[in-house]
Amino acid sequence: MNYTKCWLAYPTICREQERTLTVHSDFDGPVAQNGVKELTLGLKGLYDMGLEPVTENGADASIRLVRKDGIHPEGYAVQARGGKAVVASSGERGVLYGIFALLRQLQTVQCAWDDLDWEEEKTPSNPMRMFNHWDNLTGDIERGYSGQSFFFRDNEIIIDQRTVDYARMAASVGINATVINNVNVKGAAVELISPRYYKPLRDMQEIFAGYGIDLYFCIEFAAPILLGGLDTADPCDDRVKAWWTDKAAEVWQALPGLGGFMVKADSEGRPGPFTYGRNHADGANMLADAVAPQGGKIIWRCFVYDCQQDWRDTKTDRARACYDHYMPLDGQFRDNVILQIKNGPMDFQVREPVSPLFGGLKHTNMMLEVQVAQEYTGQQRHVCYLIPWFRQVLDQDLYCQEGPSTVADLVSGRSYGNALGGMAAVTNTGDDPNWTGHDLAAANLYGFGRLSYDTSLTGEAIAAEWVRLTYGKEPKVEDTLTDILMKSWPAYESYTAPLGIGWMVNPNHHYGPNVDGYEYAQWGTYHRADWKGLGVDRTSRGTGYCQQYAPKLANLYENLETCPDELVLFFHHLPYTYVLKSGKTVIQHIYDTHFAGAEQAAEFLRQIEELEPLLEPEVYERLHARFSHQKEHSCQWRDVINTYFYRKSGIPDAQGRKIYA
Amino acid sequence: MNYTKCWLAYPTICREQERTLTVHSDFDGPVAQNGVKELTLGLKGLYDMGLEPVTENGADASIRLVRKDGIHPEGYAVQARGGKAVVASSGERGVLYGIFALLRQLQTVQCAWDDLDWEEEKTPSNPMRMFNHWDNLTGDIERGYSGQSFFFRDNEIIIDQRTVDYARMAASVGINATVINNVNVKGAAVELISPRYYKPLRDMQEIFAGYGIDLYFCIEFAAPILLGGLDTADPCDDRVKAWWTDKAAEVWQALPGLGGFMVKADSEGRPGPFTYGRNHADGANMLADAVAPQGGKIIWRCFVYDCQQDWRDTKTDRARACYDHYMPLDGQFRDNVILQIKNGPMDFQVREPVSPLFGGLKHTNMMLEVQVAQEYTGQQRHVCYLIPWFRQVLDQDLYCQEGPSTVADLVSGRSYGNALGGMAAVTNTGDDPNWTGHDLAAANLYGFGRLSYDTSLTGEAIAAEWVRLTYGKEPKVEDTLTDILMKSWPAYESYTAPLGIGWMVNPNHHYGPNVDGYEYAQWGTYHRADWKGLGVDRTSRGTGYCQQYAPKLANLYENLETCPDELVLFFHHLPYTYVLKSGKTVIQHIYDTHFAGAEQAAEFLRQIEELEPLLEPEVYERLHARFSHQKEHSCQWRDVINTYFYRKSGIPDAQGRKIYA
Repeated sequence: MNYTKCWLAYPTICREQERTLTVHSDFDGPVAQNGVKELTLGLKGLYDMGLEPVTENGADASIRLVRKDGIHPEGYAVQARGGKAVVASSGERGVLYGIFALLRQLQTVQCAWDDLDWEEEKTPSNPMRMFNHWDNLTGDIERGYSGQSFFFRDNEIIIDQRTVDYARMAASVGINATVINNVNVKGAAVELISPRYYKPLRDMQEIFAGYGIDLYFCIEFAAPILLGGLDTADPCDDRVKAWWTDKAAEVWQALPGLGGFMVKADSEGRPGPFTYGRNHADGANMLADAVAPQGGKIIWRCFVYDCQQDWRDTKTDRARACYDHYMPLDGQFRDNVILQIKNGPMDFQVREPVSPLFGGLKHTNMMLEVQVAQEYTGQQRHVCYLIPWFRQVLDQDLYCQEGPSTVADLVSGRSYGNALGGMAAVTNTGDDPNWTGHDLAAANLYGFGRLSYDTSLTGEAIAAEWVRLTYGKEPKVEDTLTDILMKSWPAYESYTAPLGIGWMVNPNHHYGPNVDGYEYAQWGTYHRADWKGLGVDRTSRGTGYCQQYAPKLANLYENLETCPDELVLFFHHLPYTYVLKSGKTVIQHIYDTHFAGAEQAAEFLRQIEELEPLLEPEVYERLHARFSHQKEHSCQWRDVINTYFYRKSGIPDAQGRKIYA
Repeated sequence: MNYTKCWLAYPTICREQERTLTVHSDFDGPVAQNGVKELTLGLKGLYDMGLEPVTENGADASIRLVRKDGIHPEGYAVQARGGKAVVASSGERGVLYGIFALLRQLQTVQCAWDDLDWEEEKTPSNPMRMFNHWDNLTGDIERGYSGQSFFFRDNEIIIDQRTVDYARMAASVGINATVINNVNVKGAAVELISPRYYKPLRDMQEIFAGYGIDLYFCIEFAAPILLGGLDTADPCDDRVKAWWTDKAAEVWQALPGLGGFMVKADSEGRPGPFTYGRNHADGANMLADAVAPQGGKIIWRCFVYDCQQDWRDTKTDRARACYDHYMPLDGQFRDNVILQIKNGPMDFQVREPVSPLFGGLKHTNMMLEVQVAQEYTGQQRHVCYLIPWFRQVLDQDLYCQEGPSTVADLVSGRSYGNALGGMAAVTNTGDDPNWTGHDLAAANLYGFGRLSYDTSLTGEAIAAEWVRLTYGKEPKVEDTLTDILMKSWPAYESYTAPLGIGWMVNPNHHYGPNVDGYEYAQWGTYHRADWKGLGVDRTSRGTGYCQQYAPKLANLYENLETCPDELVLFFHHLPYTYVLKSGKTVIQHIYDTHFAGAEQAAEFLRQIEELEPLLEPEVYERLHARFSHQKEHSCQWRDVINTYFYRKSGIPDAQGRKIYA
């Protein structure tokens, strides 16, 4: 199948085709070799120049890949000046990242090779920077919006050029780990840790390793029963421990250097330690002990809540669940366990407060989980550039200690000196020709990698970078697409669920508006709207969720005077007539944002239409189709939400715009 | 797989095991032979008596099957007196029905053979009495709530004892036609009219024919493209006509005596004549001409509406669609075409007015379609005995002529002297051990057949009959089950969508409450509830639907003074404070019926629990599980509906009962 190269297309900057540069490397491993390959590809594409490796007189080479011990093995120092470049690191991964940085810089400044005058030194912000793929072995992707899996098809593993190009894309933005299968382990996926799949997995692993990417699988907690023939998966049962220990030895023998396992346990119907009256430390530690001799890690997902809640019960609060489950276990997890925590307490909504668990755990490795698959943010049919949102998440200070205590500090391990930690993204890829369904959704994939490697970057800088790498330097394209990207998340927020309340989507597939879609369901996601007002009281008068934060943050959210508008309905039940800090009433805010959001979506389409002469026809056609749909669908959102609240409140729009009765 | 015999279990009345009766038959075809077999089975079960066929001295036989020309070939005259019985008809089907009537009567009066003193003469009320199975060839059943198909599995046709028992059950209640596959023709089903399936279909057809049942298939309108390799299915294209004519000849040669084809065209995404700018008379007549030389019939479903409606458009009314589409075509259909019309203008809701098309068409064969599969009436997890509802439908007078003009008159062909017409039911069967999931749902299957054969029967008489045939004569079982059956439809109506408005179900699967589930969707099914009131204005001030009825009925519905309470929100948008004929406000009616309905469901469970010592354990267990669920689920219905309207209206329950805020 044909597919684009996304941001690795290396569009021409200027032609210098008579010329051949030389490269010398202190490293001879596969990662450095792939770095040289990438340089060759990049220079060919950008300048139509050749590149020739030299083994002698390395000091004279145009490009030198230099071993330098003071630099982090996944960091780099690059100097480029006067037609020569040096890429230094203490490790091959660092060199590879330095090469990608150099190629990126050439495209950013769009200069001739000899004119580049630049240096940069980087240490990765996070030890682990991970993609999570929710691919099933059948080839379907859970919450996939861009085709089928390119890892699996009909219970077989696919290895082809796309595997390599995937690894290149991941490495180019600093990704160093990937989980290839769905956290909901279904069907044949349980057998990934069995001889049936070792051979092709080994082939895949070698490709990934060549790009500095550690391979991980999601495993099934009940595997000792399903694969091992035991009658239990109790983590405290010696037979179970022995089974996992033997299994780990077998798996690592087949796949040396494997990263480890990810586990979704006791969540949304998955099996787990609760089945046996054990806690999650029992479960995670048992697996951690089994993989420790192999150097493996256990990534334990914290998405645990009661998904059989009764909507009539207003005391139970799903938002509390993650903290309530894991805080009592702080300090009990092994050193090779990492708890992976979703950014918010609910589930990847367009707006949520950050999970209070980040501020709670003090003796536990943590990883931040975000979702670039746009499950709740337009499913890659609407544009929704999420990096500014992740930026806000990372910047959120939890005030949980005197030292650094933002989410970025906490998950990186900096706050408490943890060796492990980082960021993971549920990806948005599939086998669509453009990888991500919506051409602009690739900005999220790119952006997540860049941000996880360097959490000081801004959403805008990343957007500009991505646009230029992908589309080259055409000012109108660049300005327009960057502008759309930067306005897209606020736009999506404005025409969907208001003021942090979340949901209001159609059940199951989660696409399109349905205000009451989950209001009387068992999922714990309610808005509690009546004829007077809406919102969930999570203060100490309500569910008490606020108090899971450190006092400074707890008080901020608890008090209406300080609670930010954008989260006010997440924390408070308010009358429609309550006046926000913006000076608008809640109901008028709903109307205004929904009219404005749909207007913005229409504007996006107009902007895209102006790019028609400047884009490749198939790219334009894809973009036009998506933005046309977004324009129409944002009106559906606008009208359903406005009508719902008008019908409920009886309060007309102050500006007299059309609200369907 | 083990399965029950439902109402053909022939539980013992009294033992007369020393005795053998004799039977003599004027008929020697397979249907009469099956009648004798059934007599043998029945007498064995009821009395443990033998039955011996005699060929000579027929006049002395205990039971005589007599050819008598004055009687309708599907009617019968039975006399039983002094240990002798005569079953007379002009046709074998009539004899078979007479035999089943005799066996039914023995069980109804529960007397010894010699004590029966009874006679009955019947002519079937309807020429066609048909089951429609929505079975897919994969084995799944669309809207099936009782397991998988017993006709198809993995794209193969199943022929086994269950095929025979199915035919016995159908014949025992007077069914003379069956459509074995889903109206939405999917996958391999398009090939039912191809050599791939002729052999097993012929075997199935012979079994059915032996019980007087004509076989029908649903066909795919686009078959000339899919099977014939043509580039069109345009009904006015000569190649298409020729293809269908040849195809019909081929099919009838393989399956002589086939009943014909059923077609769902231009409905919910199905292909049809509209694709080619043709109307439905063009489509149906083309097929009718193709099958006419074979003696075949075309049953054309009238379930055509715009399923891409915009909820913001209050002028378009799905209820109007059927009449609007078909009335202009009245008189244009061939004599071997039958239009199959759903009972109401929407889709099998717990309450609807009857379709105005019944009163409109004057020169077209019609068939009434009802659904005993409880798609919108509890999905065979709630008890909902629908025969009293069908009774009301049949009794509805359309006032469309001086002569007989009830639905029963119109669909039977009586009103205008049509030769064809009748009743069809979407069935509720599957391969569950009890055939229908809920043991009491078999009453609907039984009841539909009985009612279609004799439209003068009452729901109560049929219920009592069915209970006695199924469970024998135990007064407490009989009284309790009949009582539950008779209260079940009113109960289901009372705790679900109020006052004829319909829907308020979860999208797609249609189970459980979701008041706004379809409110902003494209399906044309809206309640238009706001803070003041709810309902759809279908008067001449609204969508004008009322005017599709003859003036007498139009005026009845149009005027609030005469519109019956149970349909008032179907026809009118009313304030919550509007006072109904019952003396209650709309909102208080909603609260009262929902509290009462859930109370009734709880009472059903109590009643069932009292039967524990009197029922077979597995029957009791199945019933107990279903009624326990119904009790709980009716509370979910009660609370969701009550809370929804309380939250919207702000009007409290006058009796101060618990409504969740």
